[in-house]
Order: sequence, then C-alpha cells, then structure tokens
Amino acid sequence: MNSVDQAIEANRAYADRFDMADAPSRPNKPLVVLTCIDARLHPEAFLGLGVGDAHVVRNAGGRASDDALRSIVISAQILGTRECMVIHHTDCGMLTFTNEAAREMLGPAATDVDFMPITDVEESTREDVATIRANPLMPDDLAVSGWVYDVKTGRLSSVV
Amino acid sequence: MNSVDQAIEANRAYADRFDMADAPSRPNKPLVVLTCIDARLHPEAFLGLGVGDAHVVRNAGGRASDDALRSIVISAQILGTRECMVIHHTDCGMLTFTNEAAREMLGPAATDVDFMPITDVEESTREDVATIRANPLMPDDLAVSGWVYDVKTGRLSSVV
Repeated sequence: MNSVDQAIEANRAYADRFDMADAPSRPNKPLVVLTCIDARLHPEAFLGLGVGDAHVVRNAGGRASDDALRSIVISAQILGTRECMVIHHTDCGMLTFTNEAAREMLGPAATDVDFMPITDVEESTREDVATIRANPLMPDDLAVSGWVYDVKTGRLSSVV
Repeated sequence: MNSVDQAIEANRAYADRFDMADAPSRPNKPLVVLTCIDARLHPEAFLGLGVGDAHVVRNAGGRASDDALRSIVISAQILGTRECMVIHHTDCGMLTFTNEAAREMLGPAATDVDFMPITDVEESTREDVATIRANPLMPDDLAVSGWVYDVKTGRLSSVV
C-alpha cells in the first residue's frame, strides 16, 4: 500500500468520528501562522489549536515569499486575523543547500528560481517578520512575532 | 490573554510531553501534501500522519503557485518525496471573492497581485494537479493526485 492509500484509509476513520461540521469558515482565533513544510512540525498540535481555530501557511523554510504574503493578506484582510506568528525551526532542510547547488542539481529550468535557502534560522525569522511588517497590504494593527521551534524538544523560543 | 500567549502556553505543555526527538529530517513517508490554510483543515489529523511522516505545504486555496512549486521541488528533489496530494476543500474562502473585488478593497498596492481565487474546487484541483505534473523541475516519477476535503464531514473525495 502506498502512502496515499494509507492516508485515504486513515481519512475514512477520521471522517467516521468527525464531529466538527459546525466549525465556522472564519477562524475562531484571530491567528495566522507561517511555518515550514518539515514533516516534524505539526503546528496545530504544538500550538494547541483545535479544528477551526487558526490559519496555517506553510512553505519550504516558512519564508515570507510573495505567495505567503498573498495568503496572509487574505487571512488578515478578508478573514479577520490580527496576530501572525512566523515560526522557523532548528535542523531545517533549507540550511543544507545554496541556490547555486540547487540550480546545478536541477539544471537549466532552475536557473531563475530562488529556492530561498537559509543560513541562520534566527536571522531568517527576523528577516521574514520584517518583510511582513513592511508589506503595505497588511492591516496596520497586525501583530507579527517571530519564533524558532526546536525539533528535538518540541519547544518554541521567542526571536522577535 | 491573546491568541499567541495561549498558543505559547499550549506549546509548553506539548514540549513537556514531547518524545519525538529522534524523528528524521527526511520524511518517513515519501509524501508531500499541498492544501489550503483554512482553519478547519488539520491535514496531519485527517490523513493520519505522525510527527516526521510527511511534508505539508499550505497557502490560500492550496494553489500550485510558484512558491508551492518551489516547496514541492525541494521536498521531492532534495528530500525524496514521490507522492503528492493536492487537496482543495468545500466552502473555501477563495470562492467568496474575485481579484477585482480584492484589488478594489485593498487599493493601489494590490493592483498587480493575483490572489488566485477559485470558482469551482474540483476544477481548481484539476488545474493545480496539471500545473505540478507539467513542471519541468519535478522528478519524472512523482505521482500527483487531486482530492477535495469536505469540511462538513471530514472526508476526502478523489478528483484526479
């Protein structure tokens, strides 16, 4: 059985016991989280979020890419969130390569891609918080904070 | 107490009982999921994924944006995933506005932004699966499938 088949089998069991049909489309909490795709990060679990509680945006690194900004603007301006947590993490895969290495590995089609690698997770967290704060599409009262998640301990540390 | 303070308090309890220090940085399963930021979607829960099991990419709509493609390429080419599930969902916030409406609401700074709204979630799922399949940076043997998650039942339906 491949991983998709396993996931679909698990979903049947989830749906059989699902009882959150009334969760509203606007989040219960005014919270949007930006974090990495890393398989060790289960943000709803490590932040204590229930079904319907908060938006979660995820990309490689948890970077404030143009697309993450699009998602956060929609979250804040259309769906009312006002607190944004940027969460990078220890042992991130984005620390393990450079744009040059990725482009060499992937060939000509990758020439113009910025893979957004990271050299220091506290620095990247600070950068991405600054990018979101400076974006003119965000509401003026959006509170943006930066955190690092430790994959060895499950604990968040404040960065900014 | 604001939502961030509540999340940090919940994280302390999570870290106190955390026992996944040995989860590897490469996912246990060769699976990468692309889905929406919606607060009602807990993909690890509805797919039965444990800590360390699979990458999860999330943006507004679960769209195959350039940044989602960046994340999936890194997941597949650098971290070895070979199955990709694109999961859109019923009652998506992206069904509720147009680019024109969002630009009018947000003013001149939004003029050039494509918010990637959706008019039909099965159609958008098919489109985004096709975009990932056609991307020259993906491995040839990446299996991409498309699904719709029903927020009223917790159940996934196959689209493509």
